[in-house]
Amino acid sequence: MAKSKFEYVRDFEADDTCLPNCWIVVRLDGRNFGRGGFSEQHEFKKPNDDRALQLMTKCAQTVMEELEDIAIAYGQSDEYSFVFKKKSRWFKRRASKFMTHVVSQFASSYVFYWKDYFKDQQLLYPPGFDGRIVLYPSNQNLKDYLSWRQADCHINNLYNTVFWMLVQRSGLTPMQAQERLQGTLAGDKNEILFSEFNINYNNEPLMYRKGTVLIWQKINEVMTKKIKLPKDAEEKEVEVTRTRTKVVPLHCDIIGDQFWEEYPEILAEDS
Amino acid sequence: MAKSKFEYVRDFEADDTCLPNCWIVVRLDGRNFGRGGFSEQHEFKKPNDDRALQLMTKCAQTVMEELEDIAIAYGQSDEYSFVFKKKSRWFKRRASKFMTHVVSQFASSYVFYWKDYFKDQQLLYPPGFDGRIVLYPSNQNLKDYLSWRQADCHINNLYNTVFWMLVQRSGLTPMQAQERLQGTLAGDKNEILFSEFNINYNNEPLMYRKGTVLIWQKINEVMTKKIKLPKDAEEKEVEVTRTRTKVVPLHCDIIGDQFWEEYPEILAEDS
Amino acid sequence: MAKSKFEYVRDFEADDTCLPNCWIVVRLDGRNFGRGGFSEQHEFKKPNDDRALQLMTKCAQTVMEELEDIAIAYGQSDEYSFVFKKKSRWFKRRASKFMTHVVSQFASSYVFYWKDYFKDQQLLYPPGFDGRIVLYPSNQNLKDYLSWRQADCHINNLYNTVFWMLVQRSGLTPMQAQERLQGTLAGDKNEILFSEFNINYNNEPLMYRKGTVLIWQKINEVMTKKIKLPKDAEEKEVEVTRTRTKVVPLHCDIIGDQFWEEYPEILAEDS
Amino acid sequence: MAKSKFEYVRDFEADDTCLPNCWIVVRLDGRNFGRGGFSEQHEFKKPNDDRALQLMTKCAQTVMEELEDIAIAYGQSDEYSFVFKKKSRWFKRRASKFMTHVVSQFASSYVFYWKDYFKDQQLLYPPGFDGRIVLYPSNQNLKDYLSWRQADCHINNLYNTVFWMLVQRSGLTPMQAQERLQGTLAGDKNEILFSEFNINYNNEPLMYRKGTVLIWQKINEVMTKKIKLPKDAEEKEVEVTRTRTKVVPLHCDIIGDQFWEEYPEILAEDS
Repeated sequence: MAKSKFEYVRDFEADDTCLPNCWIVVRLDGRNFGRGGFSEQHEFKKPNDDRALQLMTKCAQTVMEELEDIAIAYGQSDEYSFVFKKKSRWFKRRASKFMTHVVSQFASSYVFYWKDYFKDQQLLYPPGFDGRIVLYPSNQNLKDYLSWRQADCHINNLYNTVFWMLVQRSGLTPMQAQERLQGTLAGDKNEILFSEFNINYNNEPLMYRKGTVLIWQKINEVMTKKIKLPKDAEEKEVEVTRTRTKVVPLHCDIIGDQFWEEYPEILAEDS
Repeated sequence: MAKSKFEYVRDFEADDTCLPNCWIVVRLDGRNFGRGGFSEQHEFKKPNDDRALQLMTKCAQTVMEELEDIAIAYGQSDEYSFVFKKKSRWFKRRASKFMTHVVSQFASSYVFYWKDYFKDQQLLYPPGFDGRIVLYPSNQNLKDYLSWRQADCHINNLYNTVFWMLVQRSGLTPMQAQERLQGTLAGDKNEILFSEFNINYNNEPLMYRKGTVLIWQKINEVMTKKIKLPKDAEEKEVEVTRTRTKVVPLHCDIIGDQFWEEYPEILAEDS
Repeated sequence: MAKSKFEYVRDFEADDTCLPNCWIVVRLDGRNFGRGGFSEQHEFKKPNDDRALQLMTKCAQTVMEELEDIAIAYGQSDEYSFVFKKKSRWFKRRASKFMTHVVSQFASSYVFYWKDYFKDQQLLYPPGFDGRIVLYPSNQNLKDYLSWRQADCHINNLYNTVFWMLVQRSGLTPMQAQERLQGTLAGDKNEILFSEFNINYNNEPLMYRKGTVLIWQKINEVMTKKIKLPKDAEEKEVEVTRTRTKVVPLHCDIIGDQFWEEYPEILAEDS
Repeated sequence: MAKSKFEYVRDFEADDTCLPNCWIVVRLDGRNFGRGGFSEQHEFKKPNDDRALQLMTKCAQTVMEELEDIAIAYGQSDEYSFVFKKKSRWFKRRASKFMTHVVSQFASSYVFYWKDYFKDQQLLYPPGFDGRIVLYPSNQNLKDYLSWRQADCHINNLYNTVFWMLVQRSGLTPMQAQERLQGTLAGDKNEILFSEFNINYNNEPLMYRKGTVLIWQKINEVMTKKIKLPKDAEEKEVEVTRTRTKVVPLHCDIIGDQFWEEYPEILAEDS
């Protein structure tokens, strides 16, 4: 059973190294999470289910902590984008490694942490996710990518907010709600929300309207420690401050310049 | 918040269509499952843990049932290879779709089904898997790929069987066992097993020596149904036979011709 | 002027190795050879110019002789396809090497041999060619590729033959000829040729109707040599037969089985 | 002879679009131009043959003028690099188009313009060139690429200058000259040139030491035109100034900042 005569099959593996000096983005999406799919079967609240959004973010945090060189992540609905640093040399920049590590870690975390968020709601089957990888050469390209996802979040959330109001409060069928919204602009939808449901869209939770940004932040942790020195008669409590780098969720605008000015280290070449 | 000015970023997505008329193989491996890693932390029995192997196979079955066009799968240790049909048009043959669907479905299944196999052994953290994709143009190339993996299974299992005997029964340290085996051939290892531990390697379980092959088989299911026709006074039991296609695990040699002659439909062009 | 600090730029070169065990086809086309372009500026006879076709074939022969592992080539009009052997390891199967060697050798040969075919017709400027590379996993795929090009030759040549008869003999403007042929089938075009111009299309030269196939053939060359042995009083002439492998042009059907049965060595695995 | 049943073979063509917003560099090299090859067979003067270098530059100019979006080119010895603009949309940025157009245009030009430079020296056979394509995301990466090539020019030219002095003037065999230079540094080579051959390397022609940079320059052409207005009795001569953009060769340093400061338009985003 000589292995060597078969080893030639390794030559069929193609090189999939990512071009150096580009941002590497891996975006994943839930498989069949929409209409009639996973979210309905698991009774997600519409238009937004806090448990589901928080579970997604917990999984994304796990991905950032377990894998290497992720500078920032952005999530909304059933999708999450992970941005690896331009200079990352993780797994020699092989595209398949980036994609499969991200989606497998995310998927296993989704099942692992499910019960922490969904309590009594049983997970019926193991969900699937798909992923893709895209390279962005310049910082502007990367910011535009993230802006694209956040603008998508806004457009979808505004639509879904009105849609589900019409269905849940006004008793329209989904079909009727859809027809009502056909061709309406953002202003029209804001107006419906305000005049018919007394909702000011701008007061809706930021997590729904802006999605979730995950970044690394230095955190000062103050711990209380009991110590007893030889000279002391008794234990004393002392406070110890430790600085750690942690993944922190934000729900803020990332389309304008302010975010990038506040956190310049994200795009810094040698961060 | 016009989305359109950012949509140009979609042009950066590269096409990753697989060459038509080639077998598409996705192989996944557990991340850090070895020494000091996942398998030790979860107290896997050495050299083979039935629970772990059976969980791997359960996940692989789920992948075959949930995804499309998988003709055959082969697994051993913490790896599994999935072979998509030459003619598959699933997701337009996009490599990233094949890889990410396989590994995410496998990873979520691993956590989901863990407790069915590991009972009281708690899963400590969500595991990761990595994957790669390889194309094989001819049937011979594909058979050689699978032979390569099965020969690898044999070589590793023979080594591990002796290694752990030396450690568990003869009390050698891992380092000593490794030194003892340095430079030995298959015959030497068989001889150690036989003379020192009275083990005939060929009698070791097939699952350990050959790994696991998953194929689609037609199964006749006989179900008992209770029916009551209008003319009948009482319900009667009848037997109903239904033919279904099911994923079936085998532990057999796939290097020789016999397997391929027995299951010609696996390689059949239009299967 | 240390070179080493810049050498990192080599890491940006992507691997473009062709999948093993596939036929590698490089097809080139003349750049702007059509209407108002190179062929008009150089007064090519319409619909077919023997000088131009023969020059193309001379260049293709040069490519086959100068480069390695080309099993067969097929040309028509201003295009030529070169088929490299499945098992070729030339330049480690790097796609860019195959493409650029083919088109550069072809282009330089085109200018170099121009005067041998075009005599008094001056070459006005250096022509350009573009190329592409395609992989075909199976022999059937390759035969279908070549059939596709030959069917294209047939369709274009039939059209062009009628078109130019209508323009040259019936005095139609190109626009009128085009309108006349709009929507006609092959049978209609044959009928116009026969009834209006007394031309039986099937008697048109094979080179126009079938294009040109280039294959390697063993050739017995008989040379006459003068020798004088010590025992001889005078020189004698002797005939020496030498077997060489040469590129030979054919103008035959390659869509049906006959050609492939006659020259089985072209597709033979280890040829 | 239905073409349609074969058209499926087009699906085997892979997409080779270059990542947007990156500099696209195509570098070509003469095939077998070195020792015992093309340059010897055509009696190139050593270490530098002005005719050969000027012919290379003439071909490169033709490439820049015939193709689109080339911002700058750099050549030395038997190689030339062409840099396409970051924003180029030429042929949808398909890598094969860039490579094959460059090398075929260059190769046909080489034969076409040969006699303008080599006069009585006959071209013996059509030369080949190979090409490759590389992407550079940032301006710094591109400048470093060009610096790499110019540093290579310097190192090779210094070596070749001494080597050929030793052979041509000191009568060493090539082997002896090579051994003499083994392990010498730049300073040593300068010293040999100066002390043994009274040559100050820095006075050697810039074209040899720096290679050739091709850029687009606005040129004011002053033409003399004869005109005769109705009111005039006779024709008068007038001068007309026309501004054209032309490819201009420079032999200057491109490693330092000065060149890029002098010609900022080369790297300008929307140039």
